[in-house]
Amino acid sequence: MTQSKDNYCVIMAGGIGSRFWPYSRNNRPKQFLDFFGTGRSLLQMTVDRVRPLMPISNVLIVTNVAYRDLILEQVPDLRPEQILCEPARRNTAPCIAYAVAHIRAITDKANIIVASSDALIMNEPEFQRIASMGLEFVAENDVLLTLGMKPTRPETGYGYIQFEPGEADFRKVKTFTEKPNRELAEVFVKSGEFLWNAGIFLWNMNTIWNCFREFLPDIAGPFESGADKVGGVEEADFIAGMFPSLPSVSIDYGVMEKAQNVYVLEADFGWSDLGTWGSLYDLSKKDEAENVTLHCDADYYDAHGNVVALEGGKLAVIQGLEDYIVAESDGVLLICRKQDEQQIRQFVSLAEEKYGGKFN
Amino acid sequence: MTQSKDNYCVIMAGGIGSRFWPYSRNNRPKQFLDFFGTGRSLLQMTVDRVRPLMPISNVLIVTNVAYRDLILEQVPDLRPEQILCEPARRNTAPCIAYAVAHIRAITDKANIIVASSDALIMNEPEFQRIASMGLEFVAENDVLLTLGMKPTRPETGYGYIQFEPGEADFRKVKTFTEKPNRELAEVFVKSGEFLWNAGIFLWNMNTIWNCFREFLPDIAGPFESGADKVGGVEEADFIAGMFPSLPSVSIDYGVMEKAQNVYVLEADFGWSDLGTWGSLYDLSKKDEAENVTLHCDADYYDAHGNVVALEGGKLAVIQGLEDYIVAESDGVLLICRKQDEQQIRQFVSLAEEKYGGKFN
Repeated sequence: MTQSKDNYCVIMAGGIGSRFWPYSRNNRPKQFLDFFGTGRSLLQMTVDRVRPLMPISNVLIVTNVAYRDLILEQVPDLRPEQILCEPARRNTAPCIAYAVAHIRAITDKANIIVASSDALIMNEPEFQRIASMGLEFVAENDVLLTLGMKPTRPETGYGYIQFEPGEADFRKVKTFTEKPNRELAEVFVKSGEFLWNAGIFLWNMNTIWNCFREFLPDIAGPFESGADKVGGVEEADFIAGMFPSLPSVSIDYGVMEKAQNVYVLEADFGWSDLGTWGSLYDLSKKDEAENVTLHCDADYYDAHGNVVALEGGKLAVIQGLEDYIVAESDGVLLICRKQDEQQIRQFVSLAEEKYGGKFN
Repeated sequence: MTQSKDNYCVIMAGGIGSRFWPYSRNNRPKQFLDFFGTGRSLLQMTVDRVRPLMPISNVLIVTNVAYRDLILEQVPDLRPEQILCEPARRNTAPCIAYAVAHIRAITDKANIIVASSDALIMNEPEFQRIASMGLEFVAENDVLLTLGMKPTRPETGYGYIQFEPGEADFRKVKTFTEKPNRELAEVFVKSGEFLWNAGIFLWNMNTIWNCFREFLPDIAGPFESGADKVGGVEEADFIAGMFPSLPSVSIDYGVMEKAQNVYVLEADFGWSDLGTWGSLYDLSKKDEAENVTLHCDADYYDAHGNVVALEGGKLAVIQGLEDYIVAESDGVLLICRKQDEQQIRQFVSLAEEKYGGKFN
């Protein structure tokens, strides 16, 4: 693993994480939370993970302005100009284009790793080994590289990447697949030809910018027309004016599924997108009755398979409950069957309507 | 209804109410809680209920010294000497004997109503009409009078009173019965000869004291030996010395079941002993899915028959739950099947062992 001044990292940290309500809130999305009680938030862990690969000054965080102060507080060695604020939520392609345009104003040579701020990675040295390999590969090759996670179960909550057979580390991607149904997911995992799409991308600056020009000219164009402003004192005003009119499109749909030079590097570093209470449950240490207790004390009686998270120092006494989420934070208590957790987003939006955002 | 300077009320307020944990705590038993969000605790409602019958100076509250300041705060027009502190918990007979001994030191003529501080009475004017009738009756008659509640269901959590048939308002009691099983309770209710024992007693001072002398001489004796101290500045010291050595016996077992001159007055003023979350549920207003929400906002999804009580101003979002108690107070969240609520006492005592009283 080599640290290089040409390596850059773009961390996407604008998500609102409503599936983790009531722990995640509008003013405190999940990337800023210390889910495992380790003393480090998911964002802090994400930044720390790339420190060995590049100078900290090469880490950019794209987010909403509302979270800027929180990020500077959580990662105090970032300079304010490393936090790029999106004036509107426009999905991942405009977000990444902004960061790449910003890097283009700084340098003419950059190998970039793009990652979300709210995934969990258990084996950090292995991540660093893989990321380092990938950065070296994209430094020399005009390719878009994605990291594919070895699937451990027929997960229906993730997208899949099918690759072309072969022995090489870097294999050409055949197709990207959206979240499959259960049967399809089982076929994917059995075939051995599919990997989970972790949404971690590596490329060099020129390759990805050429892709934006080719596949998303209505995103690349506006950034190029203000190229003299990006990276300078006028950047914020320029972005505030142009960003909201960009089309809302994901990098997967807008670039990865259209480009021909897409490669995947298989990885196995204990990744989870930690998208839901259920995935947090799956990853956490369980007691003998398969209950997971986070941040609190809990006594269980005739209770199995629950995940219970109360704000620090409280006691939960749980009787007669099986496979539930019990989560309490900042004035909101949620009790919901684990299997129905996809409904949480709906609860949040109904609560927003009903209580005018008081509990959001 | 007549107010009389000879009417006295003894309110027993020493209970610890562990069945309502975590709302009731050692330092805040249920009689001091405002369960229905009316702004008045059960104790305050109990005191207010007898105000039309007597001067407030004739109301005595027997309790533990730990609750004295709280009582003076909740009922600020009581003088400190109206609060009689038991140095130890010795069941209802010594408690009542203490209050009667105290009244004997003040007056030689008193009609006394004895009630617990933690029952709920819905129809206060009817209570006052019945209590007034009863006080007038015991003023003139050497009897022990108890109020019998017209049963509305075959409740197995209450004791029953069987009376001798007849048309009179005041009917002689045939037997007192402990909490019956379900089948027996159904027979009792169908027979029309049984009433619920509400533990509300009326008698004149001399009648009850003669009963203590006759049936519980080891309680009456010690009080008589210190008759010169009770009611004066030496009372507290005297009580501290003698009370703990009194036998622990209930007024029901020690007096009511032994005396011959016991009468019952049938009453129907919406009484409940409010002994458990389940009885609170039964008494409370329900939404269309039979859920009861106390002190908080709550959104229910596929949830029925629950009682949810969170500390003021919180939001509960409850999905997929049927017939549960969800109660959160002061750092403790309890989730328990309604049908298993008798286990709560056990949870409390295990939590006390485990956490050293932190959550009790």
